[in-house]
Amino acid sequence: MNEFAVNKFRTEKDSLGEVQVPLNAWYGAQTARAMANFPISGRRPDKDFVLAHVRIKLAAAHANCQPGWLSEEKRDAIVAACEKILAGEYRDEFVVDRFQAGAGTSHNMNSNEVIANVANVALGGEKGVYTPVSPNDDVNMGQSTNDTIPTAIRLAVLAKLPRLTAAVHAMAAEFSRLAEREKDTVKSGRTHLQDAVPTTLGQEFAGYAWTLARCASSLDAVRPALCEIGLGGSAAGTGLNTSPDYPARVATELAKLTHEPIRVGQLVAQMQSMNDLARLSGEIRNLALELTRISNDLRLLASGPRTGLGEIQLPPVQPGSSIMPGKVNPVMFEMLNQVCFQVLGQDAAVSYMVQAGQMELNVMMPALGSALFDAMDWLTNAMNAATEKNLKGIVVNRERCAFFIHQSVALATLLNTRIGYNRAAEVAKESEKSGRPVRDIVAERGLMSAADFDVLVLQAAHGVGSGGGAG
Amino acid sequence: MNEFAVNKFRTEKDSLGEVQVPLNAWYGAQTARAMANFPISGRRPDKDFVLAHVRIKLAAAHANCQPGWLSEEKRDAIVAACEKILAGEYRDEFVVDRFQAGAGTSHNMNSNEVIANVANVALGGEKGVYTPVSPNDDVNMGQSTNDTIPTAIRLAVLAKLPRLTAAVHAMAAEFSRLAEREKDTVKSGRTHLQDAVPTTLGQEFAGYAWTLARCASSLDAVRPALCEIGLGGSAAGTGLNTSPDYPARVATELAKLTHEPIRVGQLVAQMQSMNDLARLSGEIRNLALELTRISNDLRLLASGPRTGLGEIQLPPVQPGSSIMPGKVNPVMFEMLNQVCFQVLGQDAAVSYMVQAGQMELNVMMPALGSALFDAMDWLTNAMNAATEKNLKGIVVNRERCAFFIHQSVALATLLNTRIGYNRAAEVAKESEKSGRPVRDIVAERGLMSAADFDVLVLQAAHGVGSGGGAG
Amino acid sequence: MNEFAVNKFRTEKDSLGEVQVPLNAWYGAQTARAMANFPISGRRPDKDFVLAHVRIKLAAAHANCQPGWLSEEKRDAIVAACEKILAGEYRDEFVVDRFQAGAGTSHNMNSNEVIANVANVALGGEKGVYTPVSPNDDVNMGQSTNDTIPTAIRLAVLAKLPRLTAAVHAMAAEFSRLAEREKDTVKSGRTHLQDAVPTTLGQEFAGYAWTLARCASSLDAVRPALCEIGLGGSAAGTGLNTSPDYPARVATELAKLTHEPIRVGQLVAQMQSMNDLARLSGEIRNLALELTRISNDLRLLASGPRTGLGEIQLPPVQPGSSIMPGKVNPVMFEMLNQVCFQVLGQDAAVSYMVQAGQMELNVMMPALGSALFDAMDWLTNAMNAATEKNLKGIVVNRERCAFFIHQSVALATLLNTRIGYNRAAEVAKESEKSGRPVRDIVAERGLMSAADFDVLVLQAAHGVGSGGGAG
Amino acid sequence: MNEFAVNKFRTEKDSLGEVQVPLNAWYGAQTARAMANFPISGRRPDKDFVLAHVRIKLAAAHANCQPGWLSEEKRDAIVAACEKILAGEYRDEFVVDRFQAGAGTSHNMNSNEVIANVANVALGGEKGVYTPVSPNDDVNMGQSTNDTIPTAIRLAVLAKLPRLTAAVHAMAAEFSRLAEREKDTVKSGRTHLQDAVPTTLGQEFAGYAWTLARCASSLDAVRPALCEIGLGGSAAGTGLNTSPDYPARVATELAKLTHEPIRVGQLVAQMQSMNDLARLSGEIRNLALELTRISNDLRLLASGPRTGLGEIQLPPVQPGSSIMPGKVNPVMFEMLNQVCFQVLGQDAAVSYMVQAGQMELNVMMPALGSALFDAMDWLTNAMNAATEKNLKGIVVNRERCAFFIHQSVALATLLNTRIGYNRAAEVAKESEKSGRPVRDIVAERGLMSAADFDVLVLQAAHGVGSGGGAG
Repeated sequence: MNEFAVNKFRTEKDSLGEVQVPLNAWYGAQTARAMANFPISGRRPDKDFVLAHVRIKLAAAHANCQPGWLSEEKRDAIVAACEKILAGEYRDEFVVDRFQAGAGTSHNMNSNEVIANVANVALGGEKGVYTPVSPNDDVNMGQSTNDTIPTAIRLAVLAKLPRLTAAVHAMAAEFSRLAEREKDTVKSGRTHLQDAVPTTLGQEFAGYAWTLARCASSLDAVRPALCEIGLGGSAAGTGLNTSPDYPARVATELAKLTHEPIRVGQLVAQMQSMNDLARLSGEIRNLALELTRISNDLRLLASGPRTGLGEIQLPPVQPGSSIMPGKVNPVMFEMLNQVCFQVLGQDAAVSYMVQAGQMELNVMMPALGSALFDAMDWLTNAMNAATEKNLKGIVVNRERCAFFIHQSVALATLLNTRIGYNRAAEVAKESEKSGRPVRDIVAERGLMSAADFDVLVLQAAHGVGSGGGAG
Repeated sequence: MNEFAVNKFRTEKDSLGEVQVPLNAWYGAQTARAMANFPISGRRPDKDFVLAHVRIKLAAAHANCQPGWLSEEKRDAIVAACEKILAGEYRDEFVVDRFQAGAGTSHNMNSNEVIANVANVALGGEKGVYTPVSPNDDVNMGQSTNDTIPTAIRLAVLAKLPRLTAAVHAMAAEFSRLAEREKDTVKSGRTHLQDAVPTTLGQEFAGYAWTLARCASSLDAVRPALCEIGLGGSAAGTGLNTSPDYPARVATELAKLTHEPIRVGQLVAQMQSMNDLARLSGEIRNLALELTRISNDLRLLASGPRTGLGEIQLPPVQPGSSIMPGKVNPVMFEMLNQVCFQVLGQDAAVSYMVQAGQMELNVMMPALGSALFDAMDWLTNAMNAATEKNLKGIVVNRERCAFFIHQSVALATLLNTRIGYNRAAEVAKESEKSGRPVRDIVAERGLMSAADFDVLVLQAAHGVGSGGGAG
Repeated sequence: MNEFAVNKFRTEKDSLGEVQVPLNAWYGAQTARAMANFPISGRRPDKDFVLAHVRIKLAAAHANCQPGWLSEEKRDAIVAACEKILAGEYRDEFVVDRFQAGAGTSHNMNSNEVIANVANVALGGEKGVYTPVSPNDDVNMGQSTNDTIPTAIRLAVLAKLPRLTAAVHAMAAEFSRLAEREKDTVKSGRTHLQDAVPTTLGQEFAGYAWTLARCASSLDAVRPALCEIGLGGSAAGTGLNTSPDYPARVATELAKLTHEPIRVGQLVAQMQSMNDLARLSGEIRNLALELTRISNDLRLLASGPRTGLGEIQLPPVQPGSSIMPGKVNPVMFEMLNQVCFQVLGQDAAVSYMVQAGQMELNVMMPALGSALFDAMDWLTNAMNAATEKNLKGIVVNRERCAFFIHQSVALATLLNTRIGYNRAAEVAKESEKSGRPVRDIVAERGLMSAADFDVLVLQAAHGVGSGGGAG
Repeated sequence: MNEFAVNKFRTEKDSLGEVQVPLNAWYGAQTARAMANFPISGRRPDKDFVLAHVRIKLAAAHANCQPGWLSEEKRDAIVAACEKILAGEYRDEFVVDRFQAGAGTSHNMNSNEVIANVANVALGGEKGVYTPVSPNDDVNMGQSTNDTIPTAIRLAVLAKLPRLTAAVHAMAAEFSRLAEREKDTVKSGRTHLQDAVPTTLGQEFAGYAWTLARCASSLDAVRPALCEIGLGGSAAGTGLNTSPDYPARVATELAKLTHEPIRVGQLVAQMQSMNDLARLSGEIRNLALELTRISNDLRLLASGPRTGLGEIQLPPVQPGSSIMPGKVNPVMFEMLNQVCFQVLGQDAAVSYMVQAGQMELNVMMPALGSALFDAMDWLTNAMNAATEKNLKGIVVNRERCAFFIHQSVALATLLNTRIGYNRAAEVAKESEKSGRPVRDIVAERGLMSAADFDVLVLQAAHGVGSGGGAG
């Protein structure tokens, strides 16, 4: 610290004593303590979470003013301060590490302090003096870390959720478009990775589209629960120090601010239990499992081009190799694979945190929220990038699909209903041994003409004439 | 093998050659191969799964007979065989290890063979001869491992689900009953495990009840998806070798047999994707996370009796220690904790299996099903045992709750709205240092009479006069 | 219960009151209570664990007799009883569910009761009377659930570990044999699943062998820690009620019985911490991750045979499909995949259990042990089955390997050091577009004769002339 | 983009076409592509990883120059460029997202491009022109993404490991110091969270110290494997395009640069398998599990202060609550708990990535490395903060420890060896019922004087006179 350092700090005081706070900072003593206490990841709080928490402060100011607990002057000052932050100012003042005090006391105080200072300065006061607007008594009125942090996490994931489901729907839509385009691309099915009965690329892609749409719908199904909030529970879910009707009032204010049907939850459970967030994390996990599978499939279909399946080609977005010229790698879906695996890790972390609640509170909330936020943002970005840069440009190698179909011994299955499993198996065995197409053997044995067999293959691939098909 | 061993086996033949099958066995060659190939866990298939798979065979026989693909004689024989198995016969004939051929080909053939043999013997035939009823052509008609096994898994978990949710509701009901009984048991809240503002034991228990009820509802929310089945997709979701309208017919038959609203799913996705089972597993996981937390809380509340919290007493069900006389341990909830952790492991296994589908099929299904079945059964049994043997007999130490409440420095929080956070903090500090109750300091400082303060505490615990309360 | 039921039970008494025990049972009151309390999984204890726990009782009897705490008569009776059990008698008397009282009190008492009854009857006494040999005072002398159960888990996994590592070595040896056999099978490498530079099947298999050997060595590296035991800690690691030098004496006895270098651990940590078991579980997990990868690779190499890579063929062990005749699926490695995934689940369960220790004890031990035991047994069996039934019979399709190698555009990489990355990339591009082999383009452009290029490919595959190779 | 934007970019070209690169950037075309392709997490690469990768480039330049493959002029230019980066310059030029192309091609090219540009400019050339030093032919000579990235990950974790183990040892040392200080603080043991036999706080803390030291030693045990590297394998482990003896030479250079005993590993396995990193991740996981347990214990011991155990007090580092004045929460260990849970998530992510290798390569490496790097850094920082800010200042409430010890019914256990388990149980029961200390009942029944009993308690707590004790 140089000779002028003394000028660069102001001294604040809290119940533990004096704290040096950077002179320019809009945050205060407890934030400064938290910065010193938690030099862990160097990662600042999630933006949606910061905004959500500020919205709570804004809504609470309104709700506290209505019964006269908070003066109109203070309310206006707090509201104005919050609106500035929501508009983009003071963002760099939210500085507490993602890993911090249990339950998020540090972040709550960071918000309280910034808002109080902004409000007081607007009212002609001074940073660090906390009058007329007190961070604890006014900005935090009727609130607690224990009800504002879990509510802010809910609001933040509600903000992220539409972006995530939009990414899912965009990818599903692309698969649907491709499914329609490739509905006549007959190809060999593969079960156990072994040659199986005919299908179409369109049916495979339609399956992906269908599953992704279901994942989006499963994610949406968690929304109503996430809209239940615990504001009004204050420190222990009992609503100590809150004004009459405060929970309903603050929920109404938040509904206005967020355009979500926010409503009052079971206040004790909201603090004890992170079950709703576990459900959200679980559905994100389920989506990541499907995306892992689909990415793996696409990379396998695109394998080769010469020594693999090569049925599709993913558009090149970068030279593939630093050493192998001409190589094009499926990097967008490799990236998506990697993100999915990290998302599975986030879910594992969330699980541990969810079970760690004790008595009236879960003190793992800051990290729990952070794990979820990252999972949602990263997965959203990864899906969008994969869809835009790769899926939209998929090229199908229809010749190769057609080539494979008649190679497959599994075509013998088409004979089952005509000659029975055991005799069909003999045809299959002969094809297997000789390397000759099933079609030729069928014709040779007088079971069916080659032309009739071709029709059979086409019908089989489409499910025509069978009871099934992609219903 | 002794000298008579030659008499104890019959020789069957399949596409790979001859197989020795125990003479008395109702299963056949492929089951015998599977027993030799898979000596892994020694664990036989889940009972609900065996029955579900047999119900599929029964339903398929009806559905195949309607368009005339299967003769009425064969249908009747197959149906009769299935009904015998459903009634309890031949259970020991389902012998393939839980870890077996991918997708469950071995179990499918085990069913096909047993049913065929039972049917043929009833028709005057002989075990191992497979005429007139063929395991592949008749019992398996229009079916495949690939559509019957995932459908059987769905039917099996649908059978287990009501038992699981009943166990959840039973435990929730008991917590609700206790919550009502203890609604006036004022006690110290604990947040961060530190003395916090007053609450009641009733509110804590009501929170548990509420969360468990939500878990049950989340589990139920997966039911509609689980009722969608892939029968009719046959080998690759395209419905090869199925009769017209087979999917709808077989679904209708299964709905009758299971009393569930079974309906035709997206046949390709049903085989590619295990997403619905992932969702179920995720919700079971979410339940286990809450039960872990609640069990931990109960064990902590019951800690002591002398050197811990001791606010409740869990009824003794066994002497606690092999060495410490008089010790009573919370063994039922320790057991529940252990089961929950294993259930979390099952869910981790399920996750790996779900993402491992490739192209038209997921070949991890047998183990995936097994992991889910165990999770559901064990958790159901554990919850029921904990509820019956322990929760119902909880004794509350109300004196201790009352003793603690006035010890707590956190009572100073009740003064916030009257004298502000900072002055309340001074009272707290004095109580902290001196060890004297907040009540005495409040009275001494003339802030409030001790009697008034007592009223305040009661109100605070109940959320009376505050905006909150367990809404 | 029929009219004679009254005769079929004896009445025993413990500190909680009377208990009905089946007349023929060699176990006693506390075991009977545990059976009633814990009807969870229906799974009896692991055999190695039962034996390990009995060995502890035997060793303790010797160690307690030496300073005269236990009479020689009682010692002899206890030792004889233990030896009978170790020889195979009374196995069905160990009946407590895998999920039971925390720490395993129930299993400890099950052992104590059976041994006491066997000893007393041998001494002319009567089942259920517990004199002269008392389950608590004599069989359990100087012991506690809290030190015998974790020690028994250690001894049980020490018994299983050589079987597991033998299975790893057997598989590794087979890969080594195949690697030697296929050391000249040149084939296309695949990175990102895309055509890459040449390699040999021998090198791929040698890589598997090497990694598996390292996994075995990592498993062995946990052995010394597992040989440290907590016997002598009794109830809380402080050794209450143990005779002087008991820990060293009982460790010496156990070393004799188990032929392992058993020694006294840090007695407090042995009870607080399950870290050594976490390490074992972690190494099993690491093995399962490699086996998953290797199984996936083998199934991919064996994919096809016509529509996949088809470079190897896994010997058929059962007809592949209930519907597709002639299909042969890689069922042994699919089974191994499934077992590996369940093993990953076991490890996830173990992790949760390990972190759940509280104060002097971890009460999750019974389930923790069980999860590990299953993981080890199942993985051992699965590896052995896969090696014996499949790996040993792998057939290599050398023609296909040779066919692919010259298809690969990646051969252009061989030109880098001769003509630079950018010009090599042009050759690659032309091959890519035209579909013509790199060899032809190279010759046509006068860069090298086709024959010289062939030599280059062979050298590249073997790493000859390069700095690398499988060092 | 504004009207001047055209001046702010230079145009580069790669095999896919033209790319706009910011004029000031030291990176090039492929990095620019990667930035556009992967806008996922916004997180730049880990610093240790960046430096490790640059060290590889530096070492390779030396190794390639020795046989004359690289000119001395180019070598010097490359070496000088690398040294500048290692000294702290050009750090902001490493810009590719943590989630990127499989295997890390983008990061490898980012390094190659920056180094080439720095080298060329130093030689009088121009950014973006890549002559005389080519990123692919010179900087990447004899290398590949596939061997440099996994090697860089190994070097990066080798750099982080000593910091992590130092943090473990620092925490262990502090527990050892406290253990010595509190070796006579007799207190009630707690097993199953229930009153158990006496112990000392010193023994509890010594147990923690011992376990942490073992964790550090387990971490160190992975070092030798991590020192094996795959450089020289180039694209597929076969060493294509590497000079003779290159692997040994480059390993020697790296050993000099890193002061680690770097040596050549099995080159194929190094690329196929991430087993060594799985082992490291597993040991970090094992440490996190112990830290979770220990943090939980400390928070429980510190619970209260009035309504919990209150045996220790963790020094306050911030006001505890935004609403409850005077509250002090154990925030440092709550933070450590949260970090541990996220670390468990990182390990779960790593597991998924490790099993996902396919054929010659694991393309999940960039995310795998990143997950490990974060786990190590965050855990190191969290442990250091917890040790410095909290552990060093622990205050022990010896009066409370002493108060509890004579409350405990478990003291009856001390009578076992004198009067047998059953009679001791009667004393326990009486104490239980009456609430009177065991000591009084013992004296009253004439079993022992109160004074003698006190001596017994002290001895029991220390393990004096018993066979045990913390050996």
